[in-house]
Amino acid sequence: MVERDIKLDRERRARLGFDEAILCAGKSAAHLSGILEQAGEDSLLLTRLDSQALEDLPPALTARIDYEPLSRSGFFGPVAAPTGTAEIAIVTAGTSDARVSREAVRTLAYYGAPCLEISDVGVAGLWRLMERIEEIKRHKITIAVAGLDAALPSVIGGLVPGLVIAVPISTGYGAARGGETALFSSLVSCAPGVVVVNIDNGYGAACAALRALRGGK
Amino acid sequence: MVERDIKLDRERRARLGFDEAILCAGKSAAHLSGILEQAGEDSLLLTRLDSQALEDLPPALTARIDYEPLSRSGFFGPVAAPTGTAEIAIVTAGTSDARVSREAVRTLAYYGAPCLEISDVGVAGLWRLMERIEEIKRHKITIAVAGLDAALPSVIGGLVPGLVIAVPISTGYGAARGGETALFSSLVSCAPGVVVVNIDNGYGAACAALRALRGGK
Amino acid sequence: MVERDIKLDRERRARLGFDEAILCAGKSAAHLSGILEQAGEDSLLLTRLDSQALEDLPPALTARIDYEPLSRSGFFGPVAAPTGTAEIAIVTAGTSDARVSREAVRTLAYYGAPCLEISDVGVAGLWRLMERIEEIKRHKITIAVAGLDAALPSVIGGLVPGLVIAVPISTGYGAARGGETALFSSLVSCAPGVVVVNIDNGYGAACAALRALRGGK
Amino acid sequence: MVERDIKLDRERRARLGFDEAILCAGKSAAHLSGILEQAGEDSLLLTRLDSQALEDLPPALTARIDYEPLSRSGFFGPVAAPTGTAEIAIVTAGTSDARVSREAVRTLAYYGAPCLEISDVGVAGLWRLMERIEEIKRHKITIAVAGLDAALPSVIGGLVPGLVIAVPISTGYGAARGGETALFSSLVSCAPGVVVVNIDNGYGAACAALRALRGGK
Amino acid sequence: MVERDIKLDRERRARLGFDEAILCAGKSAAHLSGILEQAGEDSLLLTRLDSQALEDLPPALTARIDYEPLSRSGFFGPVAAPTGTAEIAIVTAGTSDARVSREAVRTLAYYGAPCLEISDVGVAGLWRLMERIEEIKRHKITIAVAGLDAALPSVIGGLVPGLVIAVPISTGYGAARGGETALFSSLVSCAPGVVVVNIDNGYGAACAALRALRGGK
Amino acid sequence: MVERDIKLDRERRARLGFDEAILCAGKSAAHLSGILEQAGEDSLLLTRLDSQALEDLPPALTARIDYEPLSRSGFFGPVAAPTGTAEIAIVTAGTSDARVSREAVRTLAYYGAPCLEISDVGVAGLWRLMERIEEIKRHKITIAVAGLDAALPSVIGGLVPGLVIAVPISTGYGAARGGETALFSSLVSCAPGVVVVNIDNGYGAACAALRALRGGK
Amino acid sequence: MVERDIKLDRERRARLGFDEAILCAGKSAAHLSGILEQAGEDSLLLTRLDSQALEDLPPALTARIDYEPLSRSGFFGPVAAPTGTAEIAIVTAGTSDARVSREAVRTLAYYGAPCLEISDVGVAGLWRLMERIEEIKRHKITIAVAGLDAALPSVIGGLVPGLVIAVPISTGYGAARGGETALFSSLVSCAPGVVVVNIDNGYGAACAALRALRGGK
Amino acid sequence: MVERDIKLDRERRARLGFDEAILCAGKSAAHLSGILEQAGEDSLLLTRLDSQALEDLPPALTARIDYEPLSRSGFFGPVAAPTGTAEIAIVTAGTSDARVSREAVRTLAYYGAPCLEISDVGVAGLWRLMERIEEIKRHKITIAVAGLDAALPSVIGGLVPGLVIAVPISTGYGAARGGETALFSSLVSCAPGVVVVNIDNGYGAACAALRALRGGK
Repeated sequence: MVERDIKLDRERRARLGFDEAILCAGKSAAHLSGILEQAGEDSLLLTRLDSQALEDLPPALTARIDYEPLSRSGFFGPVAAPTGTAEIAIVTAGTSDARVSREAVRTLAYYGAPCLEISDVGVAGLWRLMERIEEIKRHKITIAVAGLDAALPSVIGGLVPGLVIAVPISTGYGAARGGETALFSSLVSCAPGVVVVNIDNGYGAACAALRALRGGK
Repeated sequence: MVERDIKLDRERRARLGFDEAILCAGKSAAHLSGILEQAGEDSLLLTRLDSQALEDLPPALTARIDYEPLSRSGFFGPVAAPTGTAEIAIVTAGTSDARVSREAVRTLAYYGAPCLEISDVGVAGLWRLMERIEEIKRHKITIAVAGLDAALPSVIGGLVPGLVIAVPISTGYGAARGGETALFSSLVSCAPGVVVVNIDNGYGAACAALRALRGGK
Repeated sequence: MVERDIKLDRERRARLGFDEAILCAGKSAAHLSGILEQAGEDSLLLTRLDSQALEDLPPALTARIDYEPLSRSGFFGPVAAPTGTAEIAIVTAGTSDARVSREAVRTLAYYGAPCLEISDVGVAGLWRLMERIEEIKRHKITIAVAGLDAALPSVIGGLVPGLVIAVPISTGYGAARGGETALFSSLVSCAPGVVVVNIDNGYGAACAALRALRGGK
Repeated sequence: MVERDIKLDRERRARLGFDEAILCAGKSAAHLSGILEQAGEDSLLLTRLDSQALEDLPPALTARIDYEPLSRSGFFGPVAAPTGTAEIAIVTAGTSDARVSREAVRTLAYYGAPCLEISDVGVAGLWRLMERIEEIKRHKITIAVAGLDAALPSVIGGLVPGLVIAVPISTGYGAARGGETALFSSLVSCAPGVVVVNIDNGYGAACAALRALRGGK
Repeated sequence: MVERDIKLDRERRARLGFDEAILCAGKSAAHLSGILEQAGEDSLLLTRLDSQALEDLPPALTARIDYEPLSRSGFFGPVAAPTGTAEIAIVTAGTSDARVSREAVRTLAYYGAPCLEISDVGVAGLWRLMERIEEIKRHKITIAVAGLDAALPSVIGGLVPGLVIAVPISTGYGAARGGETALFSSLVSCAPGVVVVNIDNGYGAACAALRALRGGK
Repeated sequence: MVERDIKLDRERRARLGFDEAILCAGKSAAHLSGILEQAGEDSLLLTRLDSQALEDLPPALTARIDYEPLSRSGFFGPVAAPTGTAEIAIVTAGTSDARVSREAVRTLAYYGAPCLEISDVGVAGLWRLMERIEEIKRHKITIAVAGLDAALPSVIGGLVPGLVIAVPISTGYGAARGGETALFSSLVSCAPGVVVVNIDNGYGAACAALRALRGGK
Repeated sequence: MVERDIKLDRERRARLGFDEAILCAGKSAAHLSGILEQAGEDSLLLTRLDSQALEDLPPALTARIDYEPLSRSGFFGPVAAPTGTAEIAIVTAGTSDARVSREAVRTLAYYGAPCLEISDVGVAGLWRLMERIEEIKRHKITIAVAGLDAALPSVIGGLVPGLVIAVPISTGYGAARGGETALFSSLVSCAPGVVVVNIDNGYGAACAALRALRGGK
Repeated sequence: MVERDIKLDRERRARLGFDEAILCAGKSAAHLSGILEQAGEDSLLLTRLDSQALEDLPPALTARIDYEPLSRSGFFGPVAAPTGTAEIAIVTAGTSDARVSREAVRTLAYYGAPCLEISDVGVAGLWRLMERIEEIKRHKITIAVAGLDAALPSVIGGLVPGLVIAVPISTGYGAARGGETALFSSLVSCAPGVVVVNIDNGYGAACAALRALRGGK
């Protein structure tokens, strides 16, 4: 006897406050269609959805997806309206980090959480960060997106009292090692209490921020 | 011209809400004494202070240290009194993880933050965790301390809506790779939004929890 | 003097109960044709055979192959009829693991061994696994297919008394490290006696299960 | 509120057929004593218990431990009497592998399972293995213990039809990389269906063998 | 002042008995043409020359190249006639290793050295190697080409008294790690005195064999 | 509120004597256009700009770029005229290293610094280096570009009294590990005081040389 | 015939301006005595000389060594008198870096080069560095000594125009990976033209600084 | 049934021309005594035998061992008398390499093969090697022993026509990575046909040289 149905974790919203997110990279159009059809009227967050993969879906499904190309993210079905003031700042070191920071912005938007996004303030030109640091400080949570040596989360972690979530980025070559240097560097940040998510994982950083804002049950 | 003074970051408390913590491992008695003397009436948190290193300090300094041997941590000078109810749960997979979870407990105690500590509920005997999960859920933040395959943070992250901070542990041999397997495993947790600190870094996990509770400025 | 003939291990069936399996990835059409022609009337299991590679074979050979696209596996020549009840359960954490679990299913089918296949029961939504665990337990052997943190084999290994064979999966990015994190995590599972095969090696897991069922000579 | 009791998984025997095993390396005498006292009349298998650690326990506890020094294993409390004929062969490449193969033998003995132990038949002197191969073949399961290049499990896997469990060994220097070379080598064995446990994990190999012999529920 | 001429090591033949070999992978057609034109009437061995790269050269140069596609090697200009009987055996574990073993054969041919080539005698079917071992033994040097666990060089090293040169192969996936497992495995071979060259380096193995046959000056 | 402007570090020239350099690899045409437009009349150095990416820019921007294909570098806007005699020698081991050495040459040219470029003097044919060593020695700084075993910086470092900057190269396969072997080898050079930049980082080596020539403020 | 004499590179001073430096770690007292005796009236710089190793030398040799315990360095024989003003600044992130920065200071002292030493100005408390940055800038060369995430060389490299030599430090645990994280982080510094020496290699950094100051011949 | 006898490969001498060599590191005195007693009148080569381990043997066995402390090697029983002229040169880069080169010398001595030993000719002082290169060239085989960047085998491989066997050495710190940098560097030597043995494996290099001199059967 063989059984192979897709089984969505529909209890997740009640349990955790999150819908299931579908990592689309590596899934065939047929596979994705099956998931979306099973979702029915439930909303889903789609991550790493290439524009080609979007086009390969049946038009009836494509029409229901609110797509953003830089982050390659899609909202399937209706999402929450933004509410309240921004409690989360998302800060990037360079313009190449935008694809990941945007994924975090979009994930927050899916759950109706506004944020402040500041880009291109890497520490090689420290004055750029210093111009904005008081503004950043007023937020409960800072998501610091940085590749290479990932000096940004350390400097921010030394200046900002709230939760700092580092997102290492896979850009760079050679000793950047596909983002592992930024990952390890963030994990041993000289600033106390910086936390880290997986390389390029803007989605995970946003979920962590939402968890921190919501607290327990 | 050569200058070699110890320069404590005394502005840290005002800036971040943290005092400087001194990682004592690898520092000589003379070096530690110099730091403590410079601190004067300021309080300091001492981490990874071996009992031998404690004894090697001048008695006048030793007398001012509140030492806890399992975590190898010391409070130099007065610390905050505990206030409020516990908002943080600290959960460990096995009894060998206690040296690290205790470091987190002690760091929270230094800053007056009470917590719930639950040990020995690794997923190999899942019923032990299930007995306590409703209690854990009521806390805003869960620190999940686990080595080896670090399945615990994933299972907790799938059951608990608040912030989950994974602390990978260096126990184990062979493919445990000094805790790197637990570290990487936690970073790719199948549960959304789990954040991670360095291997064995109970201190960092506690600081992150404090950051999350305090929010911005 | 130079000699370059293909030399199939035709004694393998008598010795081990296995036919030679041909890993087709990286072999040219000419190379594969040569192997199939030398096989003659003997049956062969073909793994990692891309649909393009299948089409590139001479039609007379293609016609003799029973192909399944998800697992990219082919049966060359007649295979055993299924016999008896399923003694092996194949369980996957997510839908992306199906290409590998299907390879295991197909390998068992080649040798006439039925199995139970359960997909999408990863521990991030633990209730899905718990619904099926009594059913899984009744099988002598469980093949647990999981990538990322590979928490599934640990949880199953803590609930199921029979042999648990973990198959790490290469999906994921960053700290997933092409499946090495799942591999190491499975090797240090907190459940006793979980065994492991190579990353993505559904074929090997099935062979191991067959070995365990058959016993010695 | 802080809670720190040891919590043994006493349901494990009913659930899996295994008692909890205590990895003693890295645990203090006080920690071990606490565990043994909590066990009460239950039996426990102690692994990696150095003779010094054994001596450091209270005499009343030491007296209840059946200790074997080569494997550094101890039986706390009564164990099963051996029953039936050996269905498991344990084969080692060199004499340095004995500390690990003996751990497997002892684990089997704890559960009353007899085995055949053959040592020093590494493939550098292939005739030694060939002299014994027919005898090995008659067993349902072979545990192949080998370090360095781990050629032994591959050669046995090509000659023996039953389940082959490779145990990589950490001996050797340089490119042996603490057993990782043997581990990876075993995982990519050219023989089909060889399964692998963690480096030096004789205990895990024995548990896997017991799982395979017992089957499901 | 800037100077950028190609500077061939034309003294190499006199010094070492080797012509310069050109690794063509990664070099543009213009770059290769420049090298061949500078060579003039001197002969050169071309390695890793894709058929496309061959076609991209000016026809006058292509016409002077004796090309072999499996090894992707080319002889530019006249080469030595074969002399004497074969003193070198080249043995491969599987048919996928042929692209590398052929590179060794071609390098020997360039220098007029005949060899015996035996393929597909991996240790998973040990009888295949045993059938040929006496023949192999009669050669002064054996080049053993094997990927995955590289058990072949160990087994040969335990049976053959002459120099054994292991060539690790990059085939395989997961724990094969692009040939590093075969490389490390060969370096820690349990047979004494096996030497190793870089992964996939058939050219280097042949040069080493020629060095061993020629001796010093 | 979301803000996403590109923010060039325009103070860099005054602060460090460098303009911002744009690493073009991985940036879209739209992204690059935005950067160039924001630069306005300021000059920029463009690195890793593929010829295709150059063509994809708006013609008005392309027209303002002085492009060199081997190094894939572009000068946007006017650059400094060369002044003085060469104080920097750039030496490469093989012709494959030219793409990186040329990047260094171009970076120096952007800032008006002449240099001596010597190629193809790897230590496998030591006489080629020895012919030029007196000439190299007369320069204050030597940039030694070498992949594989990176023996060149060591030999130069033992012969030349000035600053030696090693640039490891990613060429090679297998144990070359994408340039990490050259990187580590350069870092542990047996010659005293050799310094190292990232793999393939000709730009960084040139900047370091310019820093050394200019000194402090 | 066997020859085993120590062969000092006495031409090094004339060729490079350096005397041979003796890395004492791992050398026996007999071995060190042999070297010092062969040196005769020549001066030598001794690095990594433990105080115990110093005591184990014959008193006549010990008496000729000017020893400094923090850096574990010794001057054997007379050294140069300091001349001129400091052109080199040595800056450390934390007090634990002093053992390495002191090795650099001592190496410079051996060659008569004065320097400015500033410690404990890591970026977690950025104000400490900012207080001193104008002073640092006035030096031609900055040696930046930092472990963990090595954010210090990046921040300095973005503020200082002269040569910046990063010395990664092996302190820290877990993801610090014995200094490899600091090493890789320094190599991919977001500031242009930072150069790097081996982990903990204060000696090498000083030699590089001397090379840069002296220039060519 | 359990069997645990030591089983020496006594056929090895007839098959390969080698006696079994006993790697003594990690073996207990009882274990070693058992091996030596079983050897009886056969000779054995003992490697990595610490002087303490030697003393711990029964005096009757110690008395039969010809011990050399630098290489930590012992001859148990009579060995071959040296015959003929040296056909093997053993060359080291630094004096710290002597413990490994001596192991090679001793292994050759055990089999009666004389050799030329030249030490301390690393390429940082190239003139030292150049003084001896003509002498080295006259030998059929050169064993090049070098750690760190292992530039020595590359330079020798470019100057010497005979077989060059590189022995990487584990000395050094940081980026030396316990000898892996020297190992990988040797494997990608820019000189053609250099072969490599495991890190610190002087014994293996000597065996390879003996294999090359003896040829086949």
